[in-house]
Amino acid sequence: MSIQSFIPPQRTLMGPGPSDVSQRVLSALARPTIGHLDPNFIAMMDEVKQLLQYAFQTSNSNTMAISAPGSAGMEACFVNLITPEDTVVVCRNGVFGERMVENVKRIGAKLVIADSPWGRAVDPQILEDTLKNNPQANFVAFVHAETSTGARSDAKTLCDIAKRHQCLTIVDAVTSLGGIELRVDDWGIDAIYSGSQKCLSCVPGISPISFSEQASEVIRNRTLPVQSWFLDQSLVMGYWSGEGKRAYHHTAPVNSLYALHESLLMLQQEGLENAWTRHQKQHKALATGFARLGLDFIVPEAERLPQLNSVYIPKGIDDANVRQFLLQEYNLEIGAGLGQYAGKAWRIGLMGFTARSENVVLCLSALENALAKFS
Amino acid sequence: MSIQSFIPPQRTLMGPGPSDVSQRVLSALARPTIGHLDPNFIAMMDEVKQLLQYAFQTSNSNTMAISAPGSAGMEACFVNLITPEDTVVVCRNGVFGERMVENVKRIGAKLVIADSPWGRAVDPQILEDTLKNNPQANFVAFVHAETSTGARSDAKTLCDIAKRHQCLTIVDAVTSLGGIELRVDDWGIDAIYSGSQKCLSCVPGISPISFSEQASEVIRNRTLPVQSWFLDQSLVMGYWSGEGKRAYHHTAPVNSLYALHESLLMLQQEGLENAWTRHQKQHKALATGFARLGLDFIVPEAERLPQLNSVYIPKGIDDANVRQFLLQEYNLEIGAGLGQYAGKAWRIGLMGFTARSENVVLCLSALENALAKFS
Repeated sequence: MSIQSFIPPQRTLMGPGPSDVSQRVLSALARPTIGHLDPNFIAMMDEVKQLLQYAFQTSNSNTMAISAPGSAGMEACFVNLITPEDTVVVCRNGVFGERMVENVKRIGAKLVIADSPWGRAVDPQILEDTLKNNPQANFVAFVHAETSTGARSDAKTLCDIAKRHQCLTIVDAVTSLGGIELRVDDWGIDAIYSGSQKCLSCVPGISPISFSEQASEVIRNRTLPVQSWFLDQSLVMGYWSGEGKRAYHHTAPVNSLYALHESLLMLQQEGLENAWTRHQKQHKALATGFARLGLDFIVPEAERLPQLNSVYIPKGIDDANVRQFLLQEYNLEIGAGLGQYAGKAWRIGLMGFTARSENVVLCLSALENALAKFS
Repeated sequence: MSIQSFIPPQRTLMGPGPSDVSQRVLSALARPTIGHLDPNFIAMMDEVKQLLQYAFQTSNSNTMAISAPGSAGMEACFVNLITPEDTVVVCRNGVFGERMVENVKRIGAKLVIADSPWGRAVDPQILEDTLKNNPQANFVAFVHAETSTGARSDAKTLCDIAKRHQCLTIVDAVTSLGGIELRVDDWGIDAIYSGSQKCLSCVPGISPISFSEQASEVIRNRTLPVQSWFLDQSLVMGYWSGEGKRAYHHTAPVNSLYALHESLLMLQQEGLENAWTRHQKQHKALATGFARLGLDFIVPEAERLPQLNSVYIPKGIDDANVRQFLLQEYNLEIGAGLGQYAGKAWRIGLMGFTARSENVVLCLSALENALAKFS
């Protein structure tokens, strides 16, 4: 073996995540490791919880960070809340709705899929009709910001419909948290999960989650053990809960939580509404540039996520050639299409720390040169 | 909120993990984040795999790092290999054997527990007898290095017995990897998992795992879907496999994998046997000092782990007072007792980068002062 220390290139990350991580967060990440039961660390975890409550706009006491990526956060919400006796309506309009379907199947619960077209928001009327036809349904799950297409669903309206039908709601906020308006308590979201590496611009690997009091009650009252020991919230809560002695469950990812703390602190210092406005402003600038370059969005304007811009690859342009050129020539990463859009679209992220003017102009100039070179 | 950036104290970590992380690994951790599908990152993952094969002493192609802590690595081994039709013998001699029991229960497989006393190695005769009495058993699981007690089991002999009874073996190497002799291929281990934060002295949050060809065949042939989507190896392998295009499964913890790469490289540069010898040498020095202080080991000498030294708390000494004093006065963390030994023992780690002479003398002097102060 002739392996050497790995020195990564310095990229600009404008794909679907991870987004650019600021030096401030990287420096926090690299601070000396301390024990996961160290009183200083426990105090920091309490701050992470407070900062997450702010980011989610919730007073849920059951708010914490799962020690694994967003897909584990998704699984944590499903396996803790749902048993084979439940009926779950999954609104599916992309890859991550499909992943929810997979989760329900593996639990063995009754599954009802409410399909909306890819590249569009979840259609509230389709959910309404599905719930009318399935009065036994007791959970509704949907993706707030579909990372595979860049579509933004109206989480407030979908939650309203679910509540009128006496359903608890499970919401994927992996790409939405910190990038667009999200109000867990006001909107009646019962279980929500996100990822560290999108609009929080923390390093990948951590999943913030939160459960409403009603959802926490469901978890407390379940008799069937959660199928995952690692994700069993009744155990994890013993480590994250605010009162008394912390019970060891697993060793927390200490340094990654330093980084999450710092990224959440940056969000709090900027102000949540200011962060939402910044994403929208940079998106507008990017969209104006795309129009100039003749690039068409997949998603209709009213349903677009500012933080994830999916555009069709122009006819005659080779997907891989362009992305490779951007990476090699400009150290610029943009995302490939996913699922139905593989090879047909690019996904251009403006998430968190990436959502800055310098990146918008870099991306537009680099894309212009790439299109000229390969057309 | 008046939260500020978190600046952790500089500790010396001599508990049961995390161990001290070297500046070399912390610096690797803080390098710029790149995409999880970046060609440079994929090349680094291939190196991580090679380095893990060296550390595990295996040629298993199905060797990788789970994007979550050791307890998720444990769960990955169990949920991928075992179905409700299987019969699993779990050798239990501490907390982590009990955790294996929990995993088997949540799968709904048939469970046979082979108990050995806490603080002792797993008794091979007990396993032999258990297998004779349970000829339908097809899996044997045990903990190589029981972190709750400091007992070292004879993994080679236990695997031999399991093989003679046509069982596949699942081995917990969370605390053993890099600290004591471990030879996955020579010993016939079929599934093994470890943790990043013990004798590898990487940051916590990652779990190296490896499956033998026979175990991989079991995974490929299963018809029942794995109950965890996140840990489903048939999907994860599409991202970690060496050939062709990598399929997106979840976003890898990019920076933590930089750190793992660096810590494994340090192990490879030191040499595996040299690392084992170093742990043994520092353990001897620590044990000599303990004898001088009148501290008695829980585990008989022949069954002791060099990297985790459990000693009884002397009569009349208050556990919490001593640990708090060590932390406040010397920034020294030692571990509390766990499970049956809670309040009765200390666990003093000499894992990875922590296993250095300067830490041995610090620990002995600090403990001597603490015992004098509180007796």
